[in-house]
Amino acid sequence: MSALAETVERVEPLDAAAVAAARAELDRKTKPRGSLGRLESLAVQLAGLAGTLDLPPIRAAVVVAAADHGYVAEGVSAYPAAVTGQMVANIAAGGAAISVLARELEVELVLADAGVGAPTANATTGPAMPREAAIQLIQSGIALANGLADRGVNTIVLGELGIGNTTAASAVHAGLLGVPPAAVSGAGTGLDAEGVRRKARTVARALAANARRGDAVDTLAALGGRELGVLSGVAVGGAARRAVIVLDGFVVCASALVAARIAPTSVDAMVASHLSTEPGHVIGLRALGLEPLLALGLRLGEGTGGVLAVPLLRAARAVLVEMATFASAGVTDAGP
Amino acid sequence: MSALAETVERVEPLDAAAVAAARAELDRKTKPRGSLGRLESLAVQLAGLAGTLDLPPIRAAVVVAAADHGYVAEGVSAYPAAVTGQMVANIAAGGAAISVLARELEVELVLADAGVGAPTANATTGPAMPREAAIQLIQSGIALANGLADRGVNTIVLGELGIGNTTAASAVHAGLLGVPPAAVSGAGTGLDAEGVRRKARTVARALAANARRGDAVDTLAALGGRELGVLSGVAVGGAARRAVIVLDGFVVCASALVAARIAPTSVDAMVASHLSTEPGHVIGLRALGLEPLLALGLRLGEGTGGVLAVPLLRAARAVLVEMATFASAGVTDAGP
Repeated sequence: MSALAETVERVEPLDAAAVAAARAELDRKTKPRGSLGRLESLAVQLAGLAGTLDLPPIRAAVVVAAADHGYVAEGVSAYPAAVTGQMVANIAAGGAAISVLARELEVELVLADAGVGAPTANATTGPAMPREAAIQLIQSGIALANGLADRGVNTIVLGELGIGNTTAASAVHAGLLGVPPAAVSGAGTGLDAEGVRRKARTVARALAANARRGDAVDTLAALGGRELGVLSGVAVGGAARRAVIVLDGFVVCASALVAARIAPTSVDAMVASHLSTEPGHVIGLRALGLEPLLALGLRLGEGTGGVLAVPLLRAARAVLVEMATFASAGVTDAGP
Repeated sequence: MSALAETVERVEPLDAAAVAAARAELDRKTKPRGSLGRLESLAVQLAGLAGTLDLPPIRAAVVVAAADHGYVAEGVSAYPAAVTGQMVANIAAGGAAISVLARELEVELVLADAGVGAPTANATTGPAMPREAAIQLIQSGIALANGLADRGVNTIVLGELGIGNTTAASAVHAGLLGVPPAAVSGAGTGLDAEGVRRKARTVARALAANARRGDAVDTLAALGGRELGVLSGVAVGGAARRAVIVLDGFVVCASALVAARIAPTSVDAMVASHLSTEPGHVIGLRALGLEPLLALGLRLGEGTGGVLAVPLLRAARAVLVEMATFASAGVTDAGP
């Protein structure tokens, strides 16, 4: 069996006993039943992943995978391709939005150069990369997730950077979900209406040029980008290690769709942090069956929405682990 | 001039120069313009309150004001009145949801006993309390806010606890906004459909029994509760000291409506943390002109939704203060 197949084998569903125990324990806490809403469902998911109610503290890292894209030749971004490398340097120097937010919210930042300055081929004329390259990128993501898990990271936020990568994400959404390119093509970093139409036409041409695709890895190779490959691997590899996989926006969602096709059970480990303003994001999240926690009008990427959800995960854990029960606190219970 | 009137005089609007400077500075940061959505508008509000872009770190406290209510005699709560005092003890012991969340999110917790065990009169037969009592409660809230501001607290979350206080909040919403009792009466801590109808009838009777009301303080006295008075004072007093006033759910919203009538400019200092499942909350927030940051299905109170928004305020501050600009980071700007 290949290393990828072995990892997929290790992705298991939430622990049903821990899920049931967490639900019962939350109903004993000093609050009206269900009154903490999404925090309660998050706490149940954390328990199901950990297989225990005795949840360890959240140790979070954000993986920002960066790469360049052949789509840029089609004029699909408001920014020139050189900005990918410039922004990688800005992230490393601590000045980017994700640098600042990760620091503020106590999330470790891990930069993964998946192909900065080495753009994929222009998918409007054939595959963005060979299938073997896509598999290697996924494997490298799995290795990255294993390294994080080995160091005690139990929560992995997926982030990305790459001029042109919302076009790759649109193409992967359209290719995997069978939806029209226009439905999943948005303004990205700031296209005008004509730019958005050009982007949708670019996606349509890429789909036509790569009409014969097999599995999701084929679609990733044909239509996607290198950072999407790495992030798909991080999602599958992290899920295999029972880490929480926190999705960011639309581009990350494309990598999550690939992960969900490779290892459907990996969705059990996923948390949708926020709903971006990209029109395709809600379509992707629905396909995954995930409800976003936040809706703050974000459209930046880099994992920014993902790290903003980490305090909610910490809050959910604290509720399950630290709150008193009606019995322990001597509070009269109104019953279910 | 009375002490209350003097405080109201000191509530000033956002600093227009700082607001404009913050907007311009955010547009220089290394991100597509506007791409951080609500974080950007929060950062602008913080700058407008502080009167500078050099924002100090967020130092947050949650004031949990607690009181008992005469409405309880009408059978409007799933829990007995004794639970107010039991939950105050639970909060003090560190076992309540707000205890756990405030600790986890690094928010100081301040319990304010506004009348636990000393319920207001049953408002279905006359005023819940005399106007003078309501004014004294507001003054005590102002003093509390001043004490916090003197200690360097610049962000005050309003929280509350009081069996029966969603009925008081419904009555204040109906009384101040002229909406039907049924539109602002919900399940509270867990009423069934008949309980909700009984609650709406109770509110209607309270409105009828207190038909002659003058200003918002009269409405607070006639229909409200002691914790609402304290929180109205904290909102006005905190706004006068340029603190951010973070609202929690429906009950806190009633106190904010009173504050907004006493000192309309105090709304400039307010942040709506979340949208609760209480049907009247969206009506109250619209009247204030505020959009909630979160929608997590919360219906607990205690300030729990408010403290969950504090990391977003910290994130907004960090974006404005710490992010690099296109010029400083050497990143190519795509222009506006």
